[in-house]
Amino acid sequence: MRNIMIVIEYDGTAYHGWQRQQGLTTVQQVLEDSIARITSEKVTVIGSGRTDAGVHALNQSAHFITNTSIETRNLLLGINSLLPSDLVIRELEEMNELFHARYDVKSKIYMYQIVNTPIRPALQRSYYWHVRAPLDVQSMEKGLSLLKGKHDFSSFCGKLESGLNCVRTMKEARIEKIGSDLLRIYFEADGFLRHMVRTIVGTLVEVGKGKREPDELLTILQSGERRCAGMTAPPQGLFLMEVRY
Amino acid sequence: MRNIMIVIEYDGTAYHGWQRQQGLTTVQQVLEDSIARITSEKVTVIGSGRTDAGVHALNQSAHFITNTSIETRNLLLGINSLLPSDLVIRELEEMNELFHARYDVKSKIYMYQIVNTPIRPALQRSYYWHVRAPLDVQSMEKGLSLLKGKHDFSSFCGKLESGLNCVRTMKEARIEKIGSDLLRIYFEADGFLRHMVRTIVGTLVEVGKGKREPDELLTILQSGERRCAGMTAPPQGLFLMEVRY
Repeated sequence: MRNIMIVIEYDGTAYHGWQRQQGLTTVQQVLEDSIARITSEKVTVIGSGRTDAGVHALNQSAHFITNTSIETRNLLLGINSLLPSDLVIRELEEMNELFHARYDVKSKIYMYQIVNTPIRPALQRSYYWHVRAPLDVQSMEKGLSLLKGKHDFSSFCGKLESGLNCVRTMKEARIEKIGSDLLRIYFEADGFLRHMVRTIVGTLVEVGKGKREPDELLTILQSGERRCAGMTAPPQGLFLMEVRY
Repeated sequence: MRNIMIVIEYDGTAYHGWQRQQGLTTVQQVLEDSIARITSEKVTVIGSGRTDAGVHALNQSAHFITNTSIETRNLLLGINSLLPSDLVIRELEEMNELFHARYDVKSKIYMYQIVNTPIRPALQRSYYWHVRAPLDVQSMEKGLSLLKGKHDFSSFCGKLESGLNCVRTMKEARIEKIGSDLLRIYFEADGFLRHMVRTIVGTLVEVGKGKREPDELLTILQSGERRCAGMTAPPQGLFLMEVRY
């Protein structure tokens, strides 16, 4: 029995997210089907976590157990030859039996991309959120900095399961401004709740537009109420950049 | 009668190029249809030149003649509201009656994007040519530099019309290396022949792979024979960046 870790890149545009769902095309299902064809075994691919429909990944991590004797290099090439053009395995490595792609996560890095121009762009439109109104990046940075550290992020969680522990540690949260109109917001945390990054970004954009004060991010955190936060930013601007173990 | 110049951005993926063609979706046709709906006049949009199927533009220029009294700002917003998401007018300006989008071109700038990685990427795949074999960028730069200046570029022209003057002046030709695996090749010339950039890039990639010597670019130029040059690089890596008047 071999425990194989894979690092996967995908364009989320055509997928109903990561998680296998009856009758829908998902990343997990397409991976499992291709791996099964190469290894001639039924296989379950365990991801580091789910990504929503339309969200992209540059380096999603996952693992699967197999009895195949195909060596790693050929396994990588073989599976990739079956995968569609919007999904690819970048790395494939044999781990010891204890490695688990979800339980062993130390932190994840997400990036959210915003294009801030009066006129919508035509190129690259599957890869950002277009915001027309001018954004005050300094206010956004001020608001964002309040989220660093250990907090209960319930207010930024899409759908709460009762009893779910929503305390997460935000190790890093920063905005990179590229040229005059591209913003990249980076987040690193020990874990993310459902829609957490997108709800934070939606709220920050309201701060950037001057509709909210930067300080409100603290009030929202403390409220524990999803309705206090802003809109959920659209999925296509979000990228899972890295999973750290 | 008003002479309107427009600067257009488009994602070429879904278009059969610029030029109106019976029964096919082209950039010119979609623009003309939208402008006609706003101005209630039949209109002909004259581009700075054609782009091929699948080629993108960040700033293509064009002009059209209209009798509409709609002011420029509203004309821009009105037409954009009808255009599909992969096509947008970035600027719209009223010119004097003498301005002509094709005849008045001083130079054009094209950019060709190559991703040079052993494993194909999944993201952004409509916007570059993926080359698997490692490329020697210095050799490519050496070859490219030989094309600068005034030359007969017949050898790099896709389909020669007899009697066509193929002398063009390449004002600038340079390679920008971004990170470890992205190459952007920029070209500025007073005009480009059909498939010229793509054939130059295809040939340069053969140089980068070590299949040709950099000096061969001179021999190819001098031969005047298309069959001496390399393959035509695929369209999706090519961007019309700017038209200068």
